[in-house]
Amino acid sequence: MKATVYRGTADVRVETVPDPSILEPTDAIVRVTHACICGSDLWFYRGDAKWQPGWRTGHELMGIVEDVGSAVTSVAKGDRVLAPFAFSDGTCEYCLHGIQTSCVHGGYWGGADNDGGQGEAVRAPFADGTLVKIPDAAANDEGLLRALLPLTDVLGTGHHAARSAGVGPGTVAAVVGDGAVGLCAVLAAKRLGAERIILFGRHPARIAIARAFGATDVVTERGEEAIAKAIELTNGGPEAVLECVGNAASMAMASGMARPGGTIGFVGVPYGAHDGLNLRRMFSQNIALRGGVAPVRAYVAELMTDVLAGTLDASPVFDLDVDLAGVPAGYAAMDSREAIKVLVRP
Amino acid sequence: MKATVYRGTADVRVETVPDPSILEPTDAIVRVTHACICGSDLWFYRGDAKWQPGWRTGHELMGIVEDVGSAVTSVAKGDRVLAPFAFSDGTCEYCLHGIQTSCVHGGYWGGADNDGGQGEAVRAPFADGTLVKIPDAAANDEGLLRALLPLTDVLGTGHHAARSAGVGPGTVAAVVGDGAVGLCAVLAAKRLGAERIILFGRHPARIAIARAFGATDVVTERGEEAIAKAIELTNGGPEAVLECVGNAASMAMASGMARPGGTIGFVGVPYGAHDGLNLRRMFSQNIALRGGVAPVRAYVAELMTDVLAGTLDASPVFDLDVDLAGVPAGYAAMDSREAIKVLVRP
Repeated sequence: MKATVYRGTADVRVETVPDPSILEPTDAIVRVTHACICGSDLWFYRGDAKWQPGWRTGHELMGIVEDVGSAVTSVAKGDRVLAPFAFSDGTCEYCLHGIQTSCVHGGYWGGADNDGGQGEAVRAPFADGTLVKIPDAAANDEGLLRALLPLTDVLGTGHHAARSAGVGPGTVAAVVGDGAVGLCAVLAAKRLGAERIILFGRHPARIAIARAFGATDVVTERGEEAIAKAIELTNGGPEAVLECVGNAASMAMASGMARPGGTIGFVGVPYGAHDGLNLRRMFSQNIALRGGVAPVRAYVAELMTDVLAGTLDASPVFDLDVDLAGVPAGYAAMDSREAIKVLVRP
Repeated sequence: MKATVYRGTADVRVETVPDPSILEPTDAIVRVTHACICGSDLWFYRGDAKWQPGWRTGHELMGIVEDVGSAVTSVAKGDRVLAPFAFSDGTCEYCLHGIQTSCVHGGYWGGADNDGGQGEAVRAPFADGTLVKIPDAAANDEGLLRALLPLTDVLGTGHHAARSAGVGPGTVAAVVGDGAVGLCAVLAAKRLGAERIILFGRHPARIAIARAFGATDVVTERGEEAIAKAIELTNGGPEAVLECVGNAASMAMASGMARPGGTIGFVGVPYGAHDGLNLRRMFSQNIALRGGVAPVRAYVAELMTDVLAGTLDASPVFDLDVDLAGVPAGYAAMDSREAIKVLVRP
C-alpha cells in the first residue's frame, strides 16, 4: 500500500510500504478514508523532535473496517470507525479511569512500530479499546464525517484543555494558540459554558473562525504586552487559561496571565514549554497546571452525541483538502501557516 | 524593643529596633509570646534569597493584643491571637475566595517594611483580616498554645499540600520532605483520610515523628532510586505527591513518581524547583501541579477546631525552644538539621 514516510527535516514522502495484516486476535485492519495533518506533526517536520528516517506519519484517522481478529467484538467488517490518536486496550486501570493515553499496553500511531494515519490502511491494535463505531445513519454523511473527524484529536484535545482548566458556566477563559487545537479549545470552552473567551492571534481567517466558535475578545499583542492586556481586560487575569501550543512563549503567556487561584489547562505538546513556565508566579499566586496529552478516547462518546445532533462542528478548521499524493504539500502549507489544518483523503 | 535582624549570610542578630505603633486605623499591636524559625528562613540565611542587611525576620507568631486602631472590631486589647505568615485585608476578592496570600492589600511579615515575628512585638496590618482570636478557655493553656502555633504556617502549609494534591479517604500519598512542613503534611494527609502515606527520609527522629503522625512507609533511597521504589511500592506511583521542599531534587522526585493522572501538591518555596520539574512526564502522564504559598488563614478555623478538641497536634515538630537571645543559635541548629523546628519565646 501507499503511506507517508518521514525522510528528514521538511521531507515527507508517499512511499510503498507493506500492507497491514492481523497480527494479534485483538487487531483490526482499517482502510483509511479520512485523515489529517496535525500541528504536532510539525515538531518532527521542522526537526525539533528526534525522528528517524523511515518512520510513518499521521495519527488522526477514520475509515472502514476491512478485517478483524478473532477476539474483536465491538466492530465488524464494513463498519465506519474513527480512531483516537492513541490506541489503548480499554481494560487497564488507566483506561478505566479515562486516561487511555497512559494505557499500559497502549501507544501512538506511526513512528517506528505502527502504521500511520496518513496512508491507505492501518493495523489497529486493541480494536475494541481503540476504535469507535460511527452509527450507520451517519456513516456515509460526508458533512457529519467531516465534523466527526476532529474527535480523533483536535476537538478532544481542545476539550481536554477546557476541562483541565476547569471551564464551566460563567468562566472567564483565555486560549493561547490560534492553531486548530486552539480554535477547538475556544469551541469547547463555549460548549462548557464559558462566559468570556479571549483568543490571542493576528491571523484574520483564524480570528474569524474563533469568533464563530465563541471567542468574545481577540488580543493582538504578544508576550508581556499580551499578558498585560489580558490582565487588564479581566481585572486580574483569566481564571482558566487553555495553553494550546507548547513552546516557551506560549507557556510564559499562560503562566504570566492566569488569575490568582486560576488554572492552566495545558495540551500543547511541550517543546520548550518548560523554559517558559513561570513557576515562581504560579507558586506565589496558587496557579495550577493540569492537563497533558489528551485522552480523547474518553471524550468521543460525549462529543459525538453533540456532533450527531448537529450542535457541535469543528470542521471549519479544515481549510485545505488533499489526497495522499498531496500530503507533502499539505505539510508545507501548515508549516508556512497558509493552512490551519489539512484533511487527507487517501 | 528587641527584634531579630538579618545582617548577611549565616548572620542574624537580635538588635534594638523602633517600637511598633498604630499607623492605620486597621492596625493592631501584638506583643509576641510565641514565634518560630521556619525552614524557609534558611533560604535567606544561606544566601539563596536576595535579602538586604537590616531586614527583619520571622513570620510565624502568636501573642497578646496590646493596642488596636479605631477600625478594628474582631480583636481587643488582652486577646490571645495567632497570625498567619501573610497578612490580608479579609475583604478583597481573593480573600473571599480563600487565597488570602493573593490579597490585593496583603503582604508578609518581616523584610524591609514590616515587623517580624522573631521580636518582642509587631504592628499587625489589617488586624480584622489577619489575626485570629484564640478562645479564652485556651488562651493560657501552654500545651494547647504549643499545638496551635503550627497553624501560623507549617500545619496550614502541610494541609494545603494535602488539599492541593487531592488527598481524601483512601488516597495513596507520598510526602517529599522530612522538615516540619513535610511532617505536618503527613499529619494533614492522615487527617484527610489517606490510606497509605510514604515518607522519604533517613533521619531517625524525623522518621519517628512521621510514623507517629501517620506515615505507613518510609523510603530511605534518594533520587531516581527513590522514584523507582515509590513506583514499585504503589504499583505505578502514588496518586497524590506532597512536595514540601522546593528544590530541584525534591521536584524531580515528585514529578518523577506521581501516578499517571495523579497530582503534585507543591508548597515548598521554589528555589531550584523549576529545574527539577519533569514537565514532559507530567504532560505524557497527565500529572497535575497544584498548590503554592499556602493561604493558611483560610484553614485556621477548621484546623483550630480539631486542635482545641485535642485530636490534632503538630507540636512534636518543635524540638528546640529558645528565647529571643537564642534565635541566632536556633538558626544554626536548623541550618545543620540538628533541630527540626525551633520555637521562640521572646
